[in-house]
Amino acid sequence: MLLVQKFGGSSVGTLDRIRACARRCVETRAQGHSLVVVVSAMKGETNRLITLANELLGPSGAERGAKGPYVNAAGGEDRAYQRELDQLVSTGEKVSASLLAMAIQRQGGAAISLVGHQLGMKTDRVFTNARITSIDRGRLHAELDAGKIVVCAGFQGLDPEGNITTLGRGGSDTSAVALAAGLRADACEILTDVDGVYTTDPRIEPRARKLDRLTYEEMIELASLGAKVLQIRSVELAMQHGVPVHVRSSLNNREGTWIVSESVRNLQAPVVRGVALDRNEAKVTLTNVPDVPGSVAQIFGALATSGIVVDMIIQNASRDGSTDVTFTVPEKDLERSVQQLSTLPLVAESSTQILSDAAICKISIVGVGMRTHAGVAARAFEVLSRDNINIQMVSTSEIKVSVVVDERYGELAVRSLHDGFGLDEAT
Amino acid sequence: MLLVQKFGGSSVGTLDRIRACARRCVETRAQGHSLVVVVSAMKGETNRLITLANELLGPSGAERGAKGPYVNAAGGEDRAYQRELDQLVSTGEKVSASLLAMAIQRQGGAAISLVGHQLGMKTDRVFTNARITSIDRGRLHAELDAGKIVVCAGFQGLDPEGNITTLGRGGSDTSAVALAAGLRADACEILTDVDGVYTTDPRIEPRARKLDRLTYEEMIELASLGAKVLQIRSVELAMQHGVPVHVRSSLNNREGTWIVSESVRNLQAPVVRGVALDRNEAKVTLTNVPDVPGSVAQIFGALATSGIVVDMIIQNASRDGSTDVTFTVPEKDLERSVQQLSTLPLVAESSTQILSDAAICKISIVGVGMRTHAGVAARAFEVLSRDNINIQMVSTSEIKVSVVVDERYGELAVRSLHDGFGLDEAT
Repeated sequence: MLLVQKFGGSSVGTLDRIRACARRCVETRAQGHSLVVVVSAMKGETNRLITLANELLGPSGAERGAKGPYVNAAGGEDRAYQRELDQLVSTGEKVSASLLAMAIQRQGGAAISLVGHQLGMKTDRVFTNARITSIDRGRLHAELDAGKIVVCAGFQGLDPEGNITTLGRGGSDTSAVALAAGLRADACEILTDVDGVYTTDPRIEPRARKLDRLTYEEMIELASLGAKVLQIRSVELAMQHGVPVHVRSSLNNREGTWIVSESVRNLQAPVVRGVALDRNEAKVTLTNVPDVPGSVAQIFGALATSGIVVDMIIQNASRDGSTDVTFTVPEKDLERSVQQLSTLPLVAESSTQILSDAAICKISIVGVGMRTHAGVAARAFEVLSRDNINIQMVSTSEIKVSVVVDERYGELAVRSLHDGFGLDEAT
Repeated sequence: MLLVQKFGGSSVGTLDRIRACARRCVETRAQGHSLVVVVSAMKGETNRLITLANELLGPSGAERGAKGPYVNAAGGEDRAYQRELDQLVSTGEKVSASLLAMAIQRQGGAAISLVGHQLGMKTDRVFTNARITSIDRGRLHAELDAGKIVVCAGFQGLDPEGNITTLGRGGSDTSAVALAAGLRADACEILTDVDGVYTTDPRIEPRARKLDRLTYEEMIELASLGAKVLQIRSVELAMQHGVPVHVRSSLNNREGTWIVSESVRNLQAPVVRGVALDRNEAKVTLTNVPDVPGSVAQIFGALATSGIVVDMIIQNASRDGSTDVTFTVPEKDLERSVQQLSTLPLVAESSTQILSDAAICKISIVGVGMRTHAGVAARAFEVLSRDNINIQMVSTSEIKVSVVVDERYGELAVRSLHDGFGLDEAT
């Protein structure tokens, strides 16, 4: 088999951990598999480099850092700055790739590290958040054919001019899936410090169980559970190319969670697969919005222009020629959203008011079977009402029911739903 | 003018120093010059990376470190290891290049960092000690034409297969000279923490003076003075391509020392230009060597095979069919040299004995004029004898007289010669 294995920043965080990764690589190779390994930077290294850049730039540089160096601001100077930031932070993965290759050699394996131009991973021109466009497989195949374990620096690529780009936080997962897709690997293993994806966060519900299989769609909807173990963009890429992804522990050899296409998953599996909690949303309501064409477009157009991603949107039925529009945005964008909206002609020229609430959270139940099973939403509402949890917003998709509730009830709601849908029972 | 400026590891050792370099770059650009900057890794960074590699490899890795990770040992595993070492340590210069480019941008300058494949610096395949073979000027010219300050990661290149190579310790000087040669720059400025090249080491002779001009040949012979400020290989490259090199302080704007071809240097300049002290040599004597063809070839052939560089060689006149051969080797290679020689048939089968002495040092007086001035060597011997310094070995070249003396008299010999040739007097 041809396997792609990705080791995250904690897995290569110390020299001891790197040696442990090397042992695992040598064992995998000894089982007869061809092996491509993708590594992140050693834990803390990316932040060290970003801190250097921020300190270098002084007070206003630190401000820039505060809103996150990965915010893609417009303007020439910023683009030049972001180019340099990518050239800078991409060194972190290069260091861990060389160290892992050395450690594998030390343990008797044949290994070579490949970075940037050697790897031939081409991307678009979006510094700090690029997308992979193609992979040159020539060098990779040559090294694999020579029997070597190929260790690739994750998180980075080259734009058409040869500038270094990075793929955004967690981009090494995307590197791994892209390599698995490009090489038609049999599986992409994401090795991490947890055993797999759970039915819900075990810190909230101790009875949470590890899932054996999930579909790509379910994993995407369970983003808040999965985000800690793999980048969602990588799941989308895996779905697009049909790459089987295996999320498992780097510390043991137990099977983890397979993320596969629906046809592969056992159709007898329960309808609801997991419960996800997202605390990082905030709610905005615009009251008395004139119910005329263009009102809603004006609101969401303004937010989109500012790069604010709106999640749930609810518009109540019109009453007296006006309506209320409620939606959620990332909590970190709440202040900016309210500022943006208050400058709208719509708000300035009518009796529209802006209300906002950061003390909310979103709970989602996810499962592919849902689209053919009536009553899942009704069951969820009943479970929550039994525990006196008030539902502020509801949104449904074919494989998901999300509700917004008061932040204080978030964990209770997770436990209620986990229990109510029997997720703690063995399959 | 088109200038290439090289900043060493101390000059970019802290964020404050990087900001100071950036100011200097912006000022140089404001004077209307086109500017290519070459940077070393931040002081300590290369050692940090090498230490990581050594610790990773454990006890025998540390041994490998002890004899220096830059020793080019034979064997496949070592070559794979050295490849990874180059991939690893080359990240240090990439980090400082990005940081300096950011700092220049911050101060209002236009700058871009170029690394590896972007720079197109091609080398041979000798990992850890590669030689530059060619430079793609396309991207460099494009960025210069766009008015940008181009900041290049020094010390590294790419072999024909695209593997990263490094140029050996101090290789950033060579990068700078190679870029200056490739771009036909008007000068290559080596910015360092001293004011230039001195007539001798000021810590030994406080009356040492800064030299305004030196020829390439003089600089090469004054290696032990120059090695602290620039790599000798870079001077050879500058001589080959006629690149004027200007060694000067990064902390002030004073003129430093120009290293130029003989025709440019003032022919009225004094005969002796500088006195160099080398403490890192050891002396080996083989007594009673049979005076037959092939004896000497056997000795130096064995040492060359072991990669030991022999400096001075003296063979006395033959007496009773045998002779004594004395030579110097680097002190660190003394033990290995003696071991190597003791296995020779010559030694095993005759009455030849091996004597060695590490407690010696070599003092050299250097100056281009020497070749047309008789009596310089005689004057040197007289000066030394006046201070009762016994001369153990003598070697002369067209522009140099070197003597080997007891280590204890090294500094006294330097002061005697510095004074004896009037080097403390203003030109």
